[in-house]
Amino acid sequence: MTPEKPVAYEDVVAARARIRGVAIRTPVMTSRTADARAGASLFFKCEQLQRVGAFKFRGAYNALARFTPEQRARGVLTFSSGNHAQGIALAAQLLGIPATIVMPSDAPAVKVEATLGYGAEVVRYDRYTEDREALGRRLAGERGLTVIPPYDHADIIAGQGTAAAELLEETGPLDALVTPLGGGGLLSGSALAARALAPGCAVIGVEPAAGDDGRRSFRAGAIVRIDTPNTIADGAQTQALGALTFPIIRALVDDIETVADDELVRAMAFFASRMKLVVEPTGCLAAAYALRGIDRFRGKRIGVILSGGNVDLARFCELTGSTR
Amino acid sequence: MTPEKPVAYEDVVAARARIRGVAIRTPVMTSRTADARAGASLFFKCEQLQRVGAFKFRGAYNALARFTPEQRARGVLTFSSGNHAQGIALAAQLLGIPATIVMPSDAPAVKVEATLGYGAEVVRYDRYTEDREALGRRLAGERGLTVIPPYDHADIIAGQGTAAAELLEETGPLDALVTPLGGGGLLSGSALAARALAPGCAVIGVEPAAGDDGRRSFRAGAIVRIDTPNTIADGAQTQALGALTFPIIRALVDDIETVADDELVRAMAFFASRMKLVVEPTGCLAAAYALRGIDRFRGKRIGVILSGGNVDLARFCELTGSTR
Repeated sequence: MTPEKPVAYEDVVAARARIRGVAIRTPVMTSRTADARAGASLFFKCEQLQRVGAFKFRGAYNALARFTPEQRARGVLTFSSGNHAQGIALAAQLLGIPATIVMPSDAPAVKVEATLGYGAEVVRYDRYTEDREALGRRLAGERGLTVIPPYDHADIIAGQGTAAAELLEETGPLDALVTPLGGGGLLSGSALAARALAPGCAVIGVEPAAGDDGRRSFRAGAIVRIDTPNTIADGAQTQALGALTFPIIRALVDDIETVADDELVRAMAFFASRMKLVVEPTGCLAAAYALRGIDRFRGKRIGVILSGGNVDLARFCELTGSTR
Repeated sequence: MTPEKPVAYEDVVAARARIRGVAIRTPVMTSRTADARAGASLFFKCEQLQRVGAFKFRGAYNALARFTPEQRARGVLTFSSGNHAQGIALAAQLLGIPATIVMPSDAPAVKVEATLGYGAEVVRYDRYTEDREALGRRLAGERGLTVIPPYDHADIIAGQGTAAAELLEETGPLDALVTPLGGGGLLSGSALAARALAPGCAVIGVEPAAGDDGRRSFRAGAIVRIDTPNTIADGAQTQALGALTFPIIRALVDDIETVADDELVRAMAFFASRMKLVVEPTGCLAAAYALRGIDRFRGKRIGVILSGGNVDLARFCELTGSTR
C-alpha cells in the first residue's frame, strides 16, 4: 500500500484474509440486563478476548505480514507501552521477525515482562528527559528497522477494521456502531467496514471526557492537539488524531461522544458481575456511552466494540471497589 | 422419560434440540499461557458465559420444556440458593411457568434479588430450624407444583450433557474431558456425551479436596455421604452424589480428582488476568486440576469445562487479592 493511496474497505478485506486462522474471531455477546439499561439491543464484540487481550493484535499482524523479506530479516520497532506493543511483539514472534519495543523506564513490570515473554527486545528510556519517538526513529534508522506506529498507518487501520467487519457479518444490519476512540485506528477502520457493509449504520466514536481532542477535531474540521489527558482510560491518552485517521473519521464517522471516568468504572463492574467479562477502562468507552441509555438508540440494534481487557487485577479491584 | 429408563445419550441429543436458540452456544477458548502451564492443549468450554452465568440453565430449561400443559399451569418448585435456582427461575420465566424457589432466610441479598428479577416467588426458611427439602416437598404437594431438584433428575442430567456435546463437536477428538463435580449432574451428563461422541476420551471429575465424597464413593462403589464441606467452591458443597448420577459416574467416568481452595483462587486470578474471564471458585475446579500440570495430560488435547461465573465482585477481589 503506497502512502498516496487512501485506505479503503478493500484493504480491510485483504487484512481479514491475512489474519484468518491467526487472530481469534472473537465472540459477540448480548445481555438482557444490558439491553434493559440501554433501552436498545446491544451486540458486544469482545476484543478483550483477542490475542494479547486487545484488538491491537489485528492491525499489528496485518502490518507485519506485509513486510518484505528484507524488512522481516531486519526487524520491526515500535514505541508504546500499551496494547500495541504487545500486539507487535506477538505478531513478530509468530512471523519470526525481530521486534524492538521502546518503553519508558518506569513502565509497569508486568507490561515489560509480557513483552519480553513474546521474545521482543525492550529498550528503556527516561520519559522525563528523552523523546520516545525521536529515540525510536533514531534506533530504527541505525538498525534498519521498520517503524510501525500504534494507529497512524494504513495497515494498522485496515487491520483494526476487521473486528467491525466480523461483527456486522455476524449480527446483520445494525442501526449504529459505537467504538472506543484514542488515536483513531479502530474508529477509522470500523468506519470503513461499516460504510461498506452496512450503509445505513451510524458510526460513533467515544473518548474520555478528559481527553476530547477527537470531538473537538471532528467539530473544528482540523486536528486539535491537547496535553496528555488525565483519565483512567490509559489506551486513549492520545494527544491528537493522526494524519491518516482524521480524514477517514471526518468523512465517514457520524459523531464523537465522551464519557466520564466514573462511567467507565461502573461499566467495568457491570461487565464483571453481570457478563463475567474483564474489560479494561479504555475497553469500556463505547459500552459506557451506550449503557447510559441514549435516546437515539432507543429500540435500535447497536454494535458496541469492547476493545481490550488488559488491566492489572489489583488495579481492577481498586477501581471497581468504589462501586460496591 | 420414565424413572425406570436410565438416562442415555439420546436424551442429551433431545435436550440439545430443546435448548437450541434459547441457551447460548458458549465459546470454546484457548490460551498459550494456559497450555504452557498445563503442558497440554486445553480447550475451555466457557459456561460462565451461559445465561444466568452457569451451565445450570441447560438442565433447567430442558426439564421445564418437557412439562405437560398441566404442570406448566401449576408451576415448578426448587430448593437451592445457587445457580440452579437462577436457571429454573429464568427458564420458567421464558416458558411462562410460575416458579417457587425455596431459599434460606440468610441467603445473600444479591441472589434473592436476581431470582426475584426473573419473576420467581421466593419462599424463605430458617436453615437452622427447618429442612429445606421437607419444606419444599410439602409446599409442592400443597400447591401441586413439580419439584425439579438441582442434579438428581434425568432431564437435568441430559441437559447438562449438552455443554460437553457442543465442546466435542467443536474441538474434534479429545484425549480427556475434565469437569467440576458437585452432585454429579454435569459430570454424568458430560460422560454420556463423551462416551457417545469420543469413545477414546477419558472423563474425569474434579471436586474440592475438603468435600471428596465423590472420589470416596467412586472408589468404594457405593454412595458415601459427608457433612457439608468447608470450601470456597460453594457450588460443590454437596454432601453426596445422587441415586441417578452415581451409577452413570461409576459406569462411565475414569477418575475423580480433588483440588485445594488455594488452587481455585490461583485459577480465578489466572482467568481474570490472562484470559479476561470471571470464573467462580466452583467453576475453576476442573481447570485448577489441569493447570497443575498433570503427567497423563502431557502433550494431549484436554477439554475443560468452566462451569460458572457467579461470584460477587467484592468476594472475587477479596479472594484473588491474596494472590497478588
